[in-house]
Amino acid sequence: MAIEITTELLENVSNLIADQKDNDLSELFHDVHHADIAEVLDELSFDDAVYIIRLLNSETTSGVLMDVDTDVREKILEQLSAKEIAEEIEELDTDDAADVIAELPEERKEEVMQQIVDEEHAKEIVELLRFDENSAGGLMAKELVKVNENWSVLGCVTRMREQAAEVTRVHSIYVVDDSGRLTGRLSLKDLLMASTKSKVADVYIPRVDSVNVHDSAEDVANKMRKYDLEAIPVVDELGILVGRITIDDIVDVIKEEADKDYQLAAGITQDVEADDTILELTRARLPWLFLGLIGGIGAFLIMGGFEDSFKENAVLFFFTPLIAAMAGNVGVQSSAIIVQGLANDDVKGSINKRLVKEMLLAALNGLALAIVLFIFIWFYNKDIQTSFAVSVSLVVVIIVAGLIGTFIPLFLDKRGIDPAIATGPFITTSNDIFGILIYFTIAKLILGV
Amino acid sequence: MAIEITTELLENVSNLIADQKDNDLSELFHDVHHADIAEVLDELSFDDAVYIIRLLNSETTSGVLMDVDTDVREKILEQLSAKEIAEEIEELDTDDAADVIAELPEERKEEVMQQIVDEEHAKEIVELLRFDENSAGGLMAKELVKVNENWSVLGCVTRMREQAAEVTRVHSIYVVDDSGRLTGRLSLKDLLMASTKSKVADVYIPRVDSVNVHDSAEDVANKMRKYDLEAIPVVDELGILVGRITIDDIVDVIKEEADKDYQLAAGITQDVEADDTILELTRARLPWLFLGLIGGIGAFLIMGGFEDSFKENAVLFFFTPLIAAMAGNVGVQSSAIIVQGLANDDVKGSINKRLVKEMLLAALNGLALAIVLFIFIWFYNKDIQTSFAVSVSLVVVIIVAGLIGTFIPLFLDKRGIDPAIATGPFITTSNDIFGILIYFTIAKLILGV
Repeated sequence: MAIEITTELLENVSNLIADQKDNDLSELFHDVHHADIAEVLDELSFDDAVYIIRLLNSETTSGVLMDVDTDVREKILEQLSAKEIAEEIEELDTDDAADVIAELPEERKEEVMQQIVDEEHAKEIVELLRFDENSAGGLMAKELVKVNENWSVLGCVTRMREQAAEVTRVHSIYVVDDSGRLTGRLSLKDLLMASTKSKVADVYIPRVDSVNVHDSAEDVANKMRKYDLEAIPVVDELGILVGRITIDDIVDVIKEEADKDYQLAAGITQDVEADDTILELTRARLPWLFLGLIGGIGAFLIMGGFEDSFKENAVLFFFTPLIAAMAGNVGVQSSAIIVQGLANDDVKGSINKRLVKEMLLAALNGLALAIVLFIFIWFYNKDIQTSFAVSVSLVVVIIVAGLIGTFIPLFLDKRGIDPAIATGPFITTSNDIFGILIYFTIAKLILGV
Repeated sequence: MAIEITTELLENVSNLIADQKDNDLSELFHDVHHADIAEVLDELSFDDAVYIIRLLNSETTSGVLMDVDTDVREKILEQLSAKEIAEEIEELDTDDAADVIAELPEERKEEVMQQIVDEEHAKEIVELLRFDENSAGGLMAKELVKVNENWSVLGCVTRMREQAAEVTRVHSIYVVDDSGRLTGRLSLKDLLMASTKSKVADVYIPRVDSVNVHDSAEDVANKMRKYDLEAIPVVDELGILVGRITIDDIVDVIKEEADKDYQLAAGITQDVEADDTILELTRARLPWLFLGLIGGIGAFLIMGGFEDSFKENAVLFFFTPLIAAMAGNVGVQSSAIIVQGLANDDVKGSINKRLVKEMLLAALNGLALAIVLFIFIWFYNKDIQTSFAVSVSLVVVIIVAGLIGTFIPLFLDKRGIDPAIATGPFITTSNDIFGILIYFTIAKLILGV
């Protein structure tokens, strides 16, 4: 049952909590999907959210906990006892469980782990905690259905049923050899179509895409997207099957990666949402604005340095916003195309070839724009020398801006730094300064002042 | 088998094609995944790509066709006969088949449709072609496994096997009533666990998430992501089950939507990749640069209008790049947060409340930056009046830029226009002009010139 979040609903919930009408609350949330309950909790006060979590059964609330905003979850977990958290953990799949544990403060982690009754579950979580959260190991769950290649189909159906009861969704049945090495897979469709008399070794597909525990989340996402996979098994260095990653986690990776790149391009340094507090939003936005301020002061100093040269021709100063804007825009365009290409693993070949191409492209764009600008200035003040100086500078500025926008992300990527930081304000600011400097230098040369 | 794309491989393929060594080519691509073959074709000449498509069997090449770049596919389809295209279509699932048909020129569509041997397949494709490509109907496939609630489990297994043979991946088994209305689902896990003696009506889950054929692709994506669904059934206005959408198509929708928003924010108007031709890249980039040029000319005219007022205080002109940059950066930050919030369906509540919040946020950021700027100018030229004029202007400019950045995407969204176009150069350019105008007006007032 879906639930519509309205002001009345939220008020109603708050009132029921204030009056401790537990039965009415349970009734209200009965059969509501945990993702919908999570949306309600995101809007309530933290105390009210904790009240709801304590009220509903952990089968529901464990899902709710995974779906609420990170900051809401953090506050809720702060207020729950180690035992209460452990109860939630027991209900979660190992990948989600490990994520929740990882978010806890160091001293609480151990406390909570000791309260987990299911020892196997606890052991698997500890294993997952070892991996970097942005690696295949950090994404994978231990829950999977696997069969030994030496089993008979009939025999393994019984054992599969036991395993399947533990797994939320059965995607593929993985086939392993006696030492646990991944050797292939059985699709559910094959199972549906196969006769129970056959043997695993006869019917399985002795080939299966897999990733290594240490592969990056982005590589896993690209692979699953490229081959349209809904689940992929994860193996360790010895080829032993250690977990599996499902597409819903990958959808989140793709979405988060895209959101992060988008925010970086817009000059927002950390993951914020429109509904975050003013303080959180300021922390995310102020650093880039400060960079812009420094850039602006740099531009101011450069212009001051050329003040004497252009005293007679002050009109040249009026073109600095135009030059800065074009340098910024071209830089952002070039860097965005490279950053996106790198993220999609589309950028192959030498850096030099890219730079030559970008130079030609920028020259073409620059020429088209410079002609328009030349005509405008010429009509405006009939001074062909000024028109020429500004237009030529524009072409050079655009070419340099394009080269910087192309080179910096490629350079950062080669160094193993996320190239997405080189978009937005970073490129805009550096190109503003370079652009203005180039502009005045060229204008000075052409006008001979 | 994966394949590594190297210069040698590409040369080798070109040479084999030139020498018409068909056996060697078939051998080379034997057992290679269609997504990998597609990557090779993307790098070959169009003639060579067509050669490979004609050489390999349509079971493989239909997948390849879906994976190559759109422009490569267009060129390949131009060179294939209607009959050859029809053979590829026969191998594709209805959703992909409809996408390929939709890309053909009008006159060829009918030609190709007439060559399709499987009449049922053709009929389903025609049905899918009616829907907008960005709606649930445009995304769905007709291939699905459905059972009647009145069947016995044993009886329906046989009929399901027939259906399953047509379906690439079985996600859920949908349950319908006698008139074809969707009434629930049977999970594969339930089937795996259920005894063959039970009846469908006894074991099915009489509840299932679904979308309407006319729902937007973005709504479908948000729903599937929220509820972690891997497939969702599509119903028409009468509740009749007409198709299903799988997560792999949704992954593409999410990725494309994110890429498009990112490109718009960076001032790139159409879907381009780093490897596209210079002409394609110019077409995508020049319009926004031209907008920037117009903005720059506007800034030039405004500055010219204030020339006489500030003749004695030319230093004020040197702050225009700073003012323009800050106005642009703040505008892009605010609009990006709103655009992302709208895309994720996170932005609820009144516009006025958002604007007040953004005003407070901008005032806070603006104040912090203005203090730094004030100190700098004061140290630099000891003129407290100029320092004051520039700093106060900066605060006002930042507040106005934040409000514009917040208001425009919300306004566009209310009007049903994609708010993402209001990011990047659009906001930067309009904020540049507004910012500079506000700056000089306030400076003039404060300095009383």
